[in-house]
Amino acid sequence: MAKFTVGVDMGGTNLRIAGYSGDWQRLSSVAVPTRVSEGPKAVLGDMAAAICHVIDECGGAGELEGIGVGSPGPIELPEGRLLEPPNLPGFHALELKTELEALLGLPVTIESDANAAALAEAHAGAGEKHGIDSLCMLTLGTGVGNGLIFDGRIWHGYRGMAGEAGHVSVWPEGILCPCGNRGCLELFASATGIVRMARETAYEGRSPRTRDLIDRGEPISARDVGRFAEEGDEGALVVYDTVGRALGLSLAGLVNILNVQLYVIGGGASAAWHLFAPALFRELERASYVYRLTMPEDPMQFTPGKTNVLPALLGTDSGLLGAAMVPHYAR
Amino acid sequence: MAKFTVGVDMGGTNLRIAGYSGDWQRLSSVAVPTRVSEGPKAVLGDMAAAICHVIDECGGAGELEGIGVGSPGPIELPEGRLLEPPNLPGFHALELKTELEALLGLPVTIESDANAAALAEAHAGAGEKHGIDSLCMLTLGTGVGNGLIFDGRIWHGYRGMAGEAGHVSVWPEGILCPCGNRGCLELFASATGIVRMARETAYEGRSPRTRDLIDRGEPISARDVGRFAEEGDEGALVVYDTVGRALGLSLAGLVNILNVQLYVIGGGASAAWHLFAPALFRELERASYVYRLTMPEDPMQFTPGKTNVLPALLGTDSGLLGAAMVPHYAR
Repeated sequence: MAKFTVGVDMGGTNLRIAGYSGDWQRLSSVAVPTRVSEGPKAVLGDMAAAICHVIDECGGAGELEGIGVGSPGPIELPEGRLLEPPNLPGFHALELKTELEALLGLPVTIESDANAAALAEAHAGAGEKHGIDSLCMLTLGTGVGNGLIFDGRIWHGYRGMAGEAGHVSVWPEGILCPCGNRGCLELFASATGIVRMARETAYEGRSPRTRDLIDRGEPISARDVGRFAEEGDEGALVVYDTVGRALGLSLAGLVNILNVQLYVIGGGASAAWHLFAPALFRELERASYVYRLTMPEDPMQFTPGKTNVLPALLGTDSGLLGAAMVPHYAR
Repeated sequence: MAKFTVGVDMGGTNLRIAGYSGDWQRLSSVAVPTRVSEGPKAVLGDMAAAICHVIDECGGAGELEGIGVGSPGPIELPEGRLLEPPNLPGFHALELKTELEALLGLPVTIESDANAAALAEAHAGAGEKHGIDSLCMLTLGTGVGNGLIFDGRIWHGYRGMAGEAGHVSVWPEGILCPCGNRGCLELFASATGIVRMARETAYEGRSPRTRDLIDRGEPISARDVGRFAEEGDEGALVVYDTVGRALGLSLAGLVNILNVQLYVIGGGASAAWHLFAPALFRELERASYVYRLTMPEDPMQFTPGKTNVLPALLGTDSGLLGAAMVPHYAR
């Protein structure tokens, strides 16, 4: 009998729920706001209701294989215990798996959102396209997520906390991160970091376009900063050069340690790939001799047998699709 | 029928060859100087002769299961192609596996020396003692080697170059490393780095004991620097504080990325564990929130279910025993 799986992308702003067929075609989907201020009980209730709705809609597609939830971290796995998640205040110590299973009466598999995105890129994105089943993904969003796929499976480590490259220092004497460390990758390669750095260049008088937004009291997004860089705004260009250097330094470490063949850069802020890629490759080539020994002639083209750094293929749906893949590519 | 394996530790100074029983008891061993200046042909000839001698001596112990060679890196695996190895000048592009198999008429498995040492710690050292089969080992020798063991097996990456944490920056704006990068761990945590830093403190007038050796024209070893630190020499104490801080920063990255339960510090320079451990744990706790979430109450005691950083158990024989284990825990 045909099977379908249900994935949940538990974002700080929206809950997205979708059902997928065995060949990863989307059958049904729902999105509802994440009522963070109402507390975990309200959010879990909304989530359970939406999951039931999607299961009903997919019923004709066969048997339910499983339900996977991609959650912001940090999170202990397989229990799915949230540990002071910065984007879900009030959700500390929530036992996501136990609570959701009690509401649904069905088994649920919890995964970190960054691991889910990496799984999707491995099996339906850049990894699948190029026939590579071990990869490392960095997801540039509000923070910087990281997922490791070894031989087609998520590498969890012993407590489910592997893949926190976002909180490894790229400049250890740099500014303080909320995690307690200094100069974390996340401070320089996330959308949040891009906006902070753009404001700094504006205050230094180097970004007239960002200054203009600040003076008008308007919000600034990473997308705005990218547009300013394309228009030649000096401060915005400096910001994306820093993004690229930070990613290049981080990747130099990951390439030297892991030696996987594919590194994928995803998340909303990766849309500015052409703005940060030159600095990324310059820094990666300088700082990693393993990369220099194995680099493609054209770093922008996938080259078999070489070390490849490529933009993600799946866009912002990778977290949702990856969550649905989690029960299939079981722990 | 009982089996035995033969391991070769191919050092820049000595070749050590030993035969081991199925339960990893040493049956026979030989050590000969590595005649680096005579070139690869002479070294391979010496190695093959010593391997044949050890096989003869072990003949009564059963059937030969395999021959494993631990080689200095960088090296491409499984071919065992040496890539400009700094400690074996003139050995670039040597096809170790093909050449040695031609001389012996027997199959040979090549491994990096740091991976071999990690395999030995996993199956007969700290990992075996505490029942843990995924670990990360740093070997503090002339350089800093690194080996990753996931689920009891060496993690090679796709070209056999995984585990080069010794060439990941701990201070990216630091001094230039021969690998082309700046501020690599190896510059601050190897025996070579310890001696260089001790000389620096002597020239700054902070290490009277090291200054004394320099003035007498005598060589300086990491062991000397350790002795000076124990005697209260200010410069030597500063050096070991730097060793600890560099290791702590490196481990903070490894803990955040890999989330394995055991990190083992081995190699000759790890004998000074008590001198660098305080700075190591201080820096690791500060820089890794994954470590803070999972740290043992007493970091000097192995604690199940926590993240443990421990000195190696096997001493300098781990590379030799690990090489013999390589054919058994096959790729």
